[in-house]
Amino acid sequence: MQRRVFIVAGYNTISLGSGRSEFNPKKENPGLEYYIQQAGRKTLEQINGADNVDESVIGNFIASRFNNQAHLAAFIPSIDPQLKYKPSVRVEGACASGGLAVMTGVKSILAGTAEVVLAIGVEVQNTVKAMYGADYLAQADYFKKRKEGHAYFFPGKFSDRAGAYAKAWGEEYMRKGMAQWYVNCVENARLCETAQEYENKNEHLLETGLLPPDATRFVDHLNYTDCSKVSDGASSIAIVSEEGLKRCGIAFENAIELVGFAQAEDNIMEEPDDPLELSTTKAAVQRALKMAGISKEQLATVETHDCFTIAGLLATEAIGFAEKGRGAAFVAEGNTARDGIIPFNTTGGLIAWGHPTGATGVHQVVTVWEQLSGRAGEAQIQIATDKPYAMTVNMGGNDKTVVSMVFKKCV
Amino acid sequence: MQRRVFIVAGYNTISLGSGRSEFNPKKENPGLEYYIQQAGRKTLEQINGADNVDESVIGNFIASRFNNQAHLAAFIPSIDPQLKYKPSVRVEGACASGGLAVMTGVKSILAGTAEVVLAIGVEVQNTVKAMYGADYLAQADYFKKRKEGHAYFFPGKFSDRAGAYAKAWGEEYMRKGMAQWYVNCVENARLCETAQEYENKNEHLLETGLLPPDATRFVDHLNYTDCSKVSDGASSIAIVSEEGLKRCGIAFENAIELVGFAQAEDNIMEEPDDPLELSTTKAAVQRALKMAGISKEQLATVETHDCFTIAGLLATEAIGFAEKGRGAAFVAEGNTARDGIIPFNTTGGLIAWGHPTGATGVHQVVTVWEQLSGRAGEAQIQIATDKPYAMTVNMGGNDKTVVSMVFKKCV
Repeated sequence: MQRRVFIVAGYNTISLGSGRSEFNPKKENPGLEYYIQQAGRKTLEQINGADNVDESVIGNFIASRFNNQAHLAAFIPSIDPQLKYKPSVRVEGACASGGLAVMTGVKSILAGTAEVVLAIGVEVQNTVKAMYGADYLAQADYFKKRKEGHAYFFPGKFSDRAGAYAKAWGEEYMRKGMAQWYVNCVENARLCETAQEYENKNEHLLETGLLPPDATRFVDHLNYTDCSKVSDGASSIAIVSEEGLKRCGIAFENAIELVGFAQAEDNIMEEPDDPLELSTTKAAVQRALKMAGISKEQLATVETHDCFTIAGLLATEAIGFAEKGRGAAFVAEGNTARDGIIPFNTTGGLIAWGHPTGATGVHQVVTVWEQLSGRAGEAQIQIATDKPYAMTVNMGGNDKTVVSMVFKKCV
Repeated sequence: MQRRVFIVAGYNTISLGSGRSEFNPKKENPGLEYYIQQAGRKTLEQINGADNVDESVIGNFIASRFNNQAHLAAFIPSIDPQLKYKPSVRVEGACASGGLAVMTGVKSILAGTAEVVLAIGVEVQNTVKAMYGADYLAQADYFKKRKEGHAYFFPGKFSDRAGAYAKAWGEEYMRKGMAQWYVNCVENARLCETAQEYENKNEHLLETGLLPPDATRFVDHLNYTDCSKVSDGASSIAIVSEEGLKRCGIAFENAIELVGFAQAEDNIMEEPDDPLELSTTKAAVQRALKMAGISKEQLATVETHDCFTIAGLLATEAIGFAEKGRGAAFVAEGNTARDGIIPFNTTGGLIAWGHPTGATGVHQVVTVWEQLSGRAGEAQIQIATDKPYAMTVNMGGNDKTVVSMVFKKCV
C-alpha cells in the first residue's frame, strides 16, 4: 500500500424492524434523511467535526425503490454545512454496497486526494410489505430471470444452495449447523444494544433453529430462523491517513489499521459454477489474506455476510476454516461461537444484528473496529496478543460482488 | 498528483432515441446488457484485451427504475470472462454518474491499486413513456418535494432558472442565447455519427430555437429545443497509468493526460442560493483549473452539461467566460460555436448528441479524448499549440453534484 490507512470512529443506528419494541410499521418512517444525518453526525463528533473531512462516500443498494430517492451523495451536505462543495459519491453493489463504500474511501486515502473520509452505509426497507420488498431486492440478481425463481427471490436462491448442501452432505447434518449459527447470532445480538434481536427472550433457540423445515418452512430449505432481517439503519466510520489521524486528534491505539483488502466480481447473468461453494468469496478472501501477509489462524474474529445461515456455513468453508462440506460440523461444534476457535459475527451478524442492506458492509467494519480497539462493551471478545487481526466479508447478490478486508489492532 | 493518469481509448454507442431513424420504440429494447457489453468490448479492443484490465467501474443513474435492475457492476464480467473476479463497482450521482465513474477510476490509478481501469457509463431510458420517465428522473432532486413542481420535474427546475434569468436580464435577450446554443449543438451533432440529432435536416434551426415560448412551450420558460434528449446509450474509456500505457501498447501521443479534477457536492434538500448561478459548478471548475495550473484561456474546448440550454448559458458564466448575466450574449455572438473563441460541446452536447444520463459524463471524456488526440473525424476542431487543454463539466441534479476535469494533449 502506498500509504497507511486507519479506521478511527464508528457508529451504528439501531437496526430497526420486527423484533425491536420501538418498531411500529404503522408509524411514519423517520426516513433516509434521518438515518444518513444521524449516522454522519455521530461519527463527525468523534473526529472533531466536519471541518476535518475531505471527502465522503455513501453506500446504498436500492433507495430508488424503497424510498423513491436516488442521488444520496447530495444528502451528505445536509449532515453538516461544512461538507458543502466537498466531494461525495454513492456506490452500489447490491448488499455489498457498504463494503464498496469503505473500499472507495480507502482508495481516496491511498490516492492522496483525502486524509479523512466519512463513509456511510444506509438502507430503509420497512416502507413496503416484505413481499414487495423482496421483488426490489431481486434486482441484486439478474432481474430478467426472477420469474423463474421463488416469490421471495433471494431466500429462494440460497434455499437452492441449502438444498444442494443437504443433498450432498445430509439434511439433518446441515440443519444442526444452521441452527447453531442462529443460536450464536442471537446470543451475540443480546449483548449489543443496537441489534434487532437485542430483546429476543426465547429460551429455546436451538430447538427453534432445529425445527424440521417442513414445520416452519419459509422457502424450500430455509426456516425463518435461517434468514436475515428486514432492517432500517445506517452505519458510519471515518477512514484516515496518518496525517488524518493527527488532524482528528485520535490516539493511535484507538484506531485500527487496514492491512489487506480485495474486491471480486462474478457475472450476474450466470448461475454459480458450484452451488456448494462461495467461489467469489473464496477468491476475495484469499487475496485479502495474502495482501495482509497473514494466515487465517491469526484472525481474532470474522464478520461475514450471513444473509442466510447457509451463507454462514459456506463462508467458514470459503475462508478455509472447514473443508468443503464440513462447515456445518465446524459451526455445530461451537467453533464460531464467541468463545470458540474463531468467533464470527460477534454482534449478531445479518441474522440477528440485522441487515439494512446498504449499511451492512459498514456495520461490519464498525464491529471489527469496536472489537480490535476494545470498545465493544458487553459484546467484547478477548483479542489475544498473537491474534491481532480481524476480517470482514461483505457479499452482494448470490456471491456476485465480494469485498473482504483485513484489519489489525494498533499497538 | 501522486501518479500520472491518462485516457487511452474510448467508444460511444449511438445515442438512441427520437431523432434517429433506427429508433423504434415499439421494438424490444436491446437492453442494458447489450449497451454495457458493446461499450466495454469496443474499448477492450483498443487496449489489447481484457487481460490488461485491473479494475472496472460503471456509472449509472437509475436502471433500478427504467430497467428494474441494480447491481450493474456484476454485468462487467459478462463483457469478457477475463474480467471475472476482478474488482468492479457501480457509482451514482444522478446525471453526474458518468463523471463520478471516471473520477472513481482515476482514484484507483492514483491509489496504485490499478494500472488500467475500464470505465463505462450507461443508461437505457426508452423503456417507459417520457412522462413516467420524468418521475424516475425526479429522484435526482429531493423526491419528497416533487409534487410542488412541474409534472416534468427537472425541466421545471431549469425553467425556474430560465424564468429568473429572463426576469433579471430580459426574455428576448435570453432567448437569443438559448436559440444559438441549440443551433451550435445541432450543427455539431450533424458531424458526429453517433449523435441523436445526426440526421437533423432542419434548415431553419435558429428560427426554431427563437420561437417565442408561448408558441411551442414545453414548460413555462423552456421550448422543446431547450431540452436534452431521452436517450439510450453507453460510453466507455480506459484510464491508465504510465505503466498501463505500456501494458496496453498505446503510443503516448494517442493518449491524453488528466491534469486537474474536482468534485463538489451541494445539499439536495435546499434550493439553489441564487437561481442565476451554478454555484456548485463554479466551485468545481475553479478547483479543477487551479489544480491544472492553467487559466480558462488555455482551454481549446469545453464539454459542459447542457441538460437544458439555460444550463449551457449559465455554465459559460460559471466557468468565467462571461460575466454574470452576459452568458446569453456570449453564446449569441457565436463565441461557443465550433469556430468561436471557445468551442463548447463539439459533438452536440446533451441537447443534440443526447443524454443517456449515466453515460453522459463518460461521453464527455470520450469527446475530449477524440478532440485532443485528433481522432474526432468530421467533428474535429483545431487544437492550437498554445491551447492544448480541454475541460469537462458533468452535473447531477440541479447543480448538486459536479465533476470537472482538465485534460492535456500528449505531445
